[in-house]
Amino acid sequence: MFVTFLTDFGLEDDFVGTCHGVMKRIAPELEIIDITHGIEPQGVLQGALMLANTLPYLPEGVHLAVVDPGVGSNRRSVALRGGDGRLYVGPDNGLLVPAVEKLGGIEAAHELTNREYALEPVSATFHGRDIFAPAAAHLAKGVAIEELGPALEPGSLRRLEIPQPDLSDRRIRACCLYVDRFGNMQLNLTRHHLGRLGIEPGRRVELELAAERYYAVAARTFTDARAGEIILYEDAYENIAIAISGGSAAETFSARPGVEVRITVE
Amino acid sequence: MFVTFLTDFGLEDDFVGTCHGVMKRIAPELEIIDITHGIEPQGVLQGALMLANTLPYLPEGVHLAVVDPGVGSNRRSVALRGGDGRLYVGPDNGLLVPAVEKLGGIEAAHELTNREYALEPVSATFHGRDIFAPAAAHLAKGVAIEELGPALEPGSLRRLEIPQPDLSDRRIRACCLYVDRFGNMQLNLTRHHLGRLGIEPGRRVELELAAERYYAVAARTFTDARAGEIILYEDAYENIAIAISGGSAAETFSARPGVEVRITVE
Amino acid sequence: MFVTFLTDFGLEDDFVGTCHGVMKRIAPELEIIDITHGIEPQGVLQGALMLANTLPYLPEGVHLAVVDPGVGSNRRSVALRGGDGRLYVGPDNGLLVPAVEKLGGIEAAHELTNREYALEPVSATFHGRDIFAPAAAHLAKGVAIEELGPALEPGSLRRLEIPQPDLSDRRIRACCLYVDRFGNMQLNLTRHHLGRLGIEPGRRVELELAAERYYAVAARTFTDARAGEIILYEDAYENIAIAISGGSAAETFSARPGVEVRITVE
Repeated sequence: MFVTFLTDFGLEDDFVGTCHGVMKRIAPELEIIDITHGIEPQGVLQGALMLANTLPYLPEGVHLAVVDPGVGSNRRSVALRGGDGRLYVGPDNGLLVPAVEKLGGIEAAHELTNREYALEPVSATFHGRDIFAPAAAHLAKGVAIEELGPALEPGSLRRLEIPQPDLSDRRIRACCLYVDRFGNMQLNLTRHHLGRLGIEPGRRVELELAAERYYAVAARTFTDARAGEIILYEDAYENIAIAISGGSAAETFSARPGVEVRITVE
Repeated sequence: MFVTFLTDFGLEDDFVGTCHGVMKRIAPELEIIDITHGIEPQGVLQGALMLANTLPYLPEGVHLAVVDPGVGSNRRSVALRGGDGRLYVGPDNGLLVPAVEKLGGIEAAHELTNREYALEPVSATFHGRDIFAPAAAHLAKGVAIEELGPALEPGSLRRLEIPQPDLSDRRIRACCLYVDRFGNMQLNLTRHHLGRLGIEPGRRVELELAAERYYAVAARTFTDARAGEIILYEDAYENIAIAISGGSAAETFSARPGVEVRITVE
Repeated sequence: MFVTFLTDFGLEDDFVGTCHGVMKRIAPELEIIDITHGIEPQGVLQGALMLANTLPYLPEGVHLAVVDPGVGSNRRSVALRGGDGRLYVGPDNGLLVPAVEKLGGIEAAHELTNREYALEPVSATFHGRDIFAPAAAHLAKGVAIEELGPALEPGSLRRLEIPQPDLSDRRIRACCLYVDRFGNMQLNLTRHHLGRLGIEPGRRVELELAAERYYAVAARTFTDARAGEIILYEDAYENIAIAISGGSAAETFSARPGVEVRITVE
């Protein structure tokens, strides 16, 4: 049985390794696939979007995700079962919902209250180790989700507000959701948004970022543009992104998630 | 059989991957759990404390740790057996001892001199690859610890000096042992030290850091305090730590391991 | 069956985890060894050298490597079989060739054109996920290399220019190929180059870096020198490197790959 694992824990500390250990003590046969632990600290929205993007490429199993600024508060700990049979474990702060809804919807939700399936004592600050990893391992081992705690109404789960773009005839006001290692800036846009303004590969547009204006070209891939040219392209998760051919868009524009980007056609 | 693995190698270079490969060539069936490879370069004390903190959460097996500023010198290479049957491999520089002593004490110690269980030739600078990883893999495969080299007197093993706090009636002089990704500063204190000054959750104290004074509050967890408030809390490894609710204590105080922290009650 | 995996993807994003997932969906039994994902972005030469350095320490299997500035262009995707039976998958940009040639030469080369062994649709920017990882997983599962696409002439594969040192009687002009976490600077030199100028452990030499001159000593290992002394030593992959005993050479010299280093004997 596979457990996929996504957090904002980073790899400098022991947090990820300790959770691996906890799971392996409970279920030595399970196999862990680390999606990433590089979500920015406390970046619930980024974690939720990345989980939804990547899960279709991962084997079915138990999907454990922990980005948890509310640890120690009264936010609930939950396990979900999706319509396609996948299982999910994490905090009830919106992190899991976009992925489950993309993959068949929420069929069942349970609160993790049964301490038989947690480590004792439960610390106030590391529920990844003490509640979530043990629950995931027990599910992977075959414990029924109903055993972990009482059923919750799926409609009662917390949901995130995902920033929506603003479109007019000639202009899109979008925002940067994510910046990757190569400096590519993922926007909250798909090809359908661009299509509504008639922006197709080859079309030149104007970008406005931090009160500066630039020309960019819609392109299929980096190598369709000349070195140094700014391009708008559809990335591998079908989001529109900004790149600089042979360079780093994020560095050039000092861009971070949340930055507003305006796209204008002439 | 599990091998847990902790180093200061980082993940940018090939060091960790190469050691994985070396172990898998010797014992394809063994399973490696990476505790972390983010120990600061040459941070023997930090590595030793993290190993002792995390090992209770990890499956029993062979515990390989390499933080090795003395590689190439005459420091010894050792394998240890703990009272609970766990095995340990690493340099004789104090790195392994706090973990073994926490988990049942040192039952046997052997020097890694038998070159049948090393790679040949042994390089002068990468004993992780050439001596320690092979020894761990052979132990995991079932080779007896006695085979690896002659017995050593456990009392002859090098030990680290772990900085101790200084307590008076109204004041504690402590130091920062470790800073994590979230900016939380782990101190060389436990709840018992705070208790001796009557500091319990809810109590206000004065902190002195780098000649500046701040108010802090003893709390159970981050969300017990208002955003921006400085808190003293017991972390998930039962050490007292400093955090800023919704922020980064290490960044705010430019704190690094070794920094002195004074705590005063009124 | 083992798949080793080396890229410039980093571990902050999901790229590595997603490729793991893709491989595990195709061949749940395969085992992945991550050599490193810390190759500098687009660092084809660095990736090629590291692959050639490390592969002798890794189990035989399928060796997947992706450093791919030309993704989306007309550069070919290839699978190679070495004279010793190892299999290789990656872009045809020189990344794989030094490793294969070190380990028995190229026995067969095939272009990855058979879309039965790729994900559909193939994105324009993430061939790691859509072409290379699936091909590696299918090879690991037992698909014959001939199935993946038409044979290529090994001589037609792209090769990298590996910078060569320039030697005269008393001086070597070398360059820095790589800087590791500990600040050690790997040069494009072996002990044979130093031997031709009579440089042996204990010999003092003059180094010239960025128009500054320093004294250094040839040494066997870090601890043979006094703290702060600059040393020239043979590293664990039999390259000559520059280190500072107890310090970081790369930091002291602000050195990066590509920097010229002159070594003069008196």
